[in-house]
Amino acid sequence: MKTRAAVAFGAGKPLEICEVDLEGPRAGEVLVEIKATGVCHTDAFTLSGDDPEGAFPAILGHEGAGVVVDVGPGVTSLKPGDHVIPLYTPECRECNFCLNPKTNMCQSIRSTQGQGLMPDGSSRFSLDGEPILHYMGCSTFSNYTVLPEIALAKVREDAPFDKICYIGCGVTTGIGAVAFTMKVEPGSTVAVFGLGGIGLNVIQGAKMVGATRIIGIDLNPGKVELAKKFGMTDFVNPNEVDDVVGHLIEITGGGVDYSFECIGNVNVMRQALECCHKGWGESCIVGVAGAGQEISTRPFQLVTGRSWRGTAFGGARGRTDVPRIVDWYMDGKIQIDDLITHTMPLDDINKAFDLMHAGESIRSVIEY
Amino acid sequence: MKTRAAVAFGAGKPLEICEVDLEGPRAGEVLVEIKATGVCHTDAFTLSGDDPEGAFPAILGHEGAGVVVDVGPGVTSLKPGDHVIPLYTPECRECNFCLNPKTNMCQSIRSTQGQGLMPDGSSRFSLDGEPILHYMGCSTFSNYTVLPEIALAKVREDAPFDKICYIGCGVTTGIGAVAFTMKVEPGSTVAVFGLGGIGLNVIQGAKMVGATRIIGIDLNPGKVELAKKFGMTDFVNPNEVDDVVGHLIEITGGGVDYSFECIGNVNVMRQALECCHKGWGESCIVGVAGAGQEISTRPFQLVTGRSWRGTAFGGARGRTDVPRIVDWYMDGKIQIDDLITHTMPLDDINKAFDLMHAGESIRSVIEY
Repeated sequence: MKTRAAVAFGAGKPLEICEVDLEGPRAGEVLVEIKATGVCHTDAFTLSGDDPEGAFPAILGHEGAGVVVDVGPGVTSLKPGDHVIPLYTPECRECNFCLNPKTNMCQSIRSTQGQGLMPDGSSRFSLDGEPILHYMGCSTFSNYTVLPEIALAKVREDAPFDKICYIGCGVTTGIGAVAFTMKVEPGSTVAVFGLGGIGLNVIQGAKMVGATRIIGIDLNPGKVELAKKFGMTDFVNPNEVDDVVGHLIEITGGGVDYSFECIGNVNVMRQALECCHKGWGESCIVGVAGAGQEISTRPFQLVTGRSWRGTAFGGARGRTDVPRIVDWYMDGKIQIDDLITHTMPLDDINKAFDLMHAGESIRSVIEY
Repeated sequence: MKTRAAVAFGAGKPLEICEVDLEGPRAGEVLVEIKATGVCHTDAFTLSGDDPEGAFPAILGHEGAGVVVDVGPGVTSLKPGDHVIPLYTPECRECNFCLNPKTNMCQSIRSTQGQGLMPDGSSRFSLDGEPILHYMGCSTFSNYTVLPEIALAKVREDAPFDKICYIGCGVTTGIGAVAFTMKVEPGSTVAVFGLGGIGLNVIQGAKMVGATRIIGIDLNPGKVELAKKFGMTDFVNPNEVDDVVGHLIEITGGGVDYSFECIGNVNVMRQALECCHKGWGESCIVGVAGAGQEISTRPFQLVTGRSWRGTAFGGARGRTDVPRIVDWYMDGKIQIDDLITHTMPLDDINKAFDLMHAGESIRSVIEY
């Protein structure tokens, strides 16, 4: 079949809207009509050429929502008409990662997904007979796409596509970091470094699980109002204090129980660790640092009881947890609407990247 | 009263055996006759002058065992004749650290202890009227010493002092890192970097809790025999492989579940983290690095599911856990005898430091 898609033909080039060929689903695969997709920093990172795993031509996009159109042989958990969210971290429920309760990092299709291919090693997309690569196993910048059954979360049908697509990445990453990876307890004191989309989702995750004090840290005071709406109780502008770590330790009487770095800055990652409370404070890296950059600290920070951890996709097991997060949204436990600052048709997708780079959007969503 | 003690008069100088004055126990304090004490790397670190908190003159030693001789007003949990192990990490059971199940780092007397003083801010030791400092709240290099009640673990009376003194630091640090801090599960694969006294105790801790595979890493193949006796199942000599991290990942099919750095080398700490299994591997820093040194890694290591942690006194709550570890020794669940390679009287204590620096001892014990 034919489908419209935004194709990345090379690093640093604008996406081009093309009509590409899409082969139907093979065994264990599902054809999905994407109804809406967010445009995420990770798409921009790969498009920029900085992503060492990036390859072209490819159809980017990994934060979508849509409807099952067709299923290949052997697919049992999905049928045409089901509403789904694509999962760049699949959940096969069979590999030694899925069977270990400590991780969500299913590895069953990792190698082919990393190469931009379906699990059988081929691509379903092509243009003029030349293959185009998949991206993060999702390629939601195509109106129709094919995914493995294990990479689709079935969600309720009354949830709006143009909002829940954000659960495919940003919402789950932020809320999951709090709820699944770090298991923040009620009454905790939490520091959130960076009040972008991920930081705001961390904040509302902390609020949802009952954190008492939620301290946002950002250089831009313009972010305070929305962050407060999401649950921030205190704001610290590093430009207005001598030493952000010392200040946080002082105002919390010893440091925070949990901290989250939501920027991708290795120096801030160190601050996030060191503002944790001696004895039990735990810091979680959510942001993605530039290739080759390193974090450092004195080992004394760890020996005196702090822990340094990280999260990917918020520790969520996609097929299990993503439907629960959709429920939380529909039940009013979490907010999404205010985070989606722009919507546009596929034809305008390059504007979404421009808005992101200009810092004018929290999230732009493409509606097909 | 008078007591014989080995006094450290200054950094880098040999200890001097003196008869010093010891004041009796004040409120909440206990006079203990030390029967045996280990000589630990931490004593040597302070004596060397490299310890930024080190102060002189002081009576070092923190790994002892003895008998209660007298108690001050208000002491309720101990009486003359009780057998005790001094605790450089006390357990007051009242501070916000003791009340938090995530830590053992009781802070109730931290500031005075760090200054070499009793909780009331004074010293019980003096020579010719000039005060001599306490050390780590213990000063076990004195035949008699005074400690706070909260810094003494009461232990069974049939346990030999010249063996269980080692539980006051090294044994508990190693076994506790496995059992209390990291909570290693049966069936785990464990890597132990450094096969000195702490590393051997980590190994026997891992064996005790049911680890299936225990890989020791050391440059000295002469340590293999004893390590095997303690439970090591595999040995890796970094000099005999191209890349110790890659080798460990290869022989374990993806990395270890837990790793322990027992050397104090920041480069090895990085290796210990990076040989952990993606998704769930956790690394624990047990060794003490030189002042000002830093650890570093790519944040990707944490984002892909590894955790970096540390331990102090093995995560043990001294008054609660040390008596249990004495039981484990008396029940034959752990070994101590083979680790105590030398014993000597107090007069020969400087030989214990010489043997340590020459790498000829695992542990030397002074018998009073």
